[in-house]
Amino acid sequence: MPPAVVLLSGGLDSATTLAIAREDGFDPIALSFRYGQRHATELEFAARVARAAGVQRHVVVDIDLRPFGGSALTTDAPVPKHDRAEEIGGGIPITYVPARNTIFLSFALALAETAGARDIYIGVNALDYSGYPDCRADYLEAFERMANLATRAGVEGARLRIRAPLLHLTKKAIIERGLALGVDYALTRSCYDPLPTGESCGRCDACLLRRRGFAQAGTTDPIPYAAP
Amino acid sequence: MPPAVVLLSGGLDSATTLAIAREDGFDPIALSFRYGQRHATELEFAARVARAAGVQRHVVVDIDLRPFGGSALTTDAPVPKHDRAEEIGGGIPITYVPARNTIFLSFALALAETAGARDIYIGVNALDYSGYPDCRADYLEAFERMANLATRAGVEGARLRIRAPLLHLTKKAIIERGLALGVDYALTRSCYDPLPTGESCGRCDACLLRRRGFAQAGTTDPIPYAAP
Repeated sequence: MPPAVVLLSGGLDSATTLAIAREDGFDPIALSFRYGQRHATELEFAARVARAAGVQRHVVVDIDLRPFGGSALTTDAPVPKHDRAEEIGGGIPITYVPARNTIFLSFALALAETAGARDIYIGVNALDYSGYPDCRADYLEAFERMANLATRAGVEGARLRIRAPLLHLTKKAIIERGLALGVDYALTRSCYDPLPTGESCGRCDACLLRRRGFAQAGTTDPIPYAAP
Repeated sequence: MPPAVVLLSGGLDSATTLAIAREDGFDPIALSFRYGQRHATELEFAARVARAAGVQRHVVVDIDLRPFGGSALTTDAPVPKHDRAEEIGGGIPITYVPARNTIFLSFALALAETAGARDIYIGVNALDYSGYPDCRADYLEAFERMANLATRAGVEGARLRIRAPLLHLTKKAIIERGLALGVDYALTRSCYDPLPTGESCGRCDACLLRRRGFAQAGTTDPIPYAAP
């Protein structure tokens, strides 16, 4: 099986993406980041998800995005909370981390190049998402084009692909797809602002979108929440 | 003066680029990386160059590219040596660091976004260079296009620019330009494989291209070399 680099956060979307990469016939190399996120506990879940999926190589890269500031996920600025997913506003929210997906994909590109992989999976989706600019199809296409000019593989005629299999799926559809592929969502966490107890807050954008997805899929989210 | 992010390595090219950014009317924010390079001493020179240029903010980001391997600059693989610049071969050399400029520019993009800068300077040049894929005009244009889709500024209609003022200059022309702008090249280092004494080796690609540039410019390179 050819190798593929899979960005793995420990969340629902990337766990599903990992299962899809396997289903597509790749040998996944998982790549996670310790970037100063307040929800760094997600890395433990990333390790569990990788183990459950039989991943042979899981690379965790340390980078520190905190000196840049500008995001509620890497500073002490409060994470916005709502009561219902429908209340999530338009525009780019404060949880947006400047250039985060670009930085993550750039490291994935370096790893792909050294591991001989031509495929990079990322679990972004453009429906039921938070309005981040770096989760859109035209952004991913532009990154792929740049990647093919940036690297040895691109110069030598190999074709690098950025694969975002969740891009046009609703959260409901993502969950249904993952369950069909045997993903154990009890091993995943999505919360931007988990409690010291380990419970997810239940009211940040990520929790609300996740819980609505499970409700719409007619199944139970197996993880603990603080808010009902 | 509007801010601009300037990638600063401590080498001749980026010191010249910094002087050009100032000349262009920007207030430069310098950005350097500790990335596991064997010539990490270049960071001391980056700090001196920034100080001499009156830079107010110099951000040094720690990232570790060593786990990825694949380059003589981040592993113990020997750095190729030659006697003359004309012996530098075609193709991509072992000193190429996979996706390095893409990673550096991605961090520059994050910093630009949080600092309110719309301009990023990078000192790559496509003449008298080592054949790296990520030093070419079409790569830089593709990065700029991607950057404008990736970020809040791009979405909101601001135009981000990747500026590479050395791209089409020979090393000779770069040195002449820098001298005219008052760059003190004694504060810079270019060697991929400096000696413990601090001397530049004089025979790696970077040394040979630099020395030929000074010779062609009809002036003396003020830094110490081990090889004559």
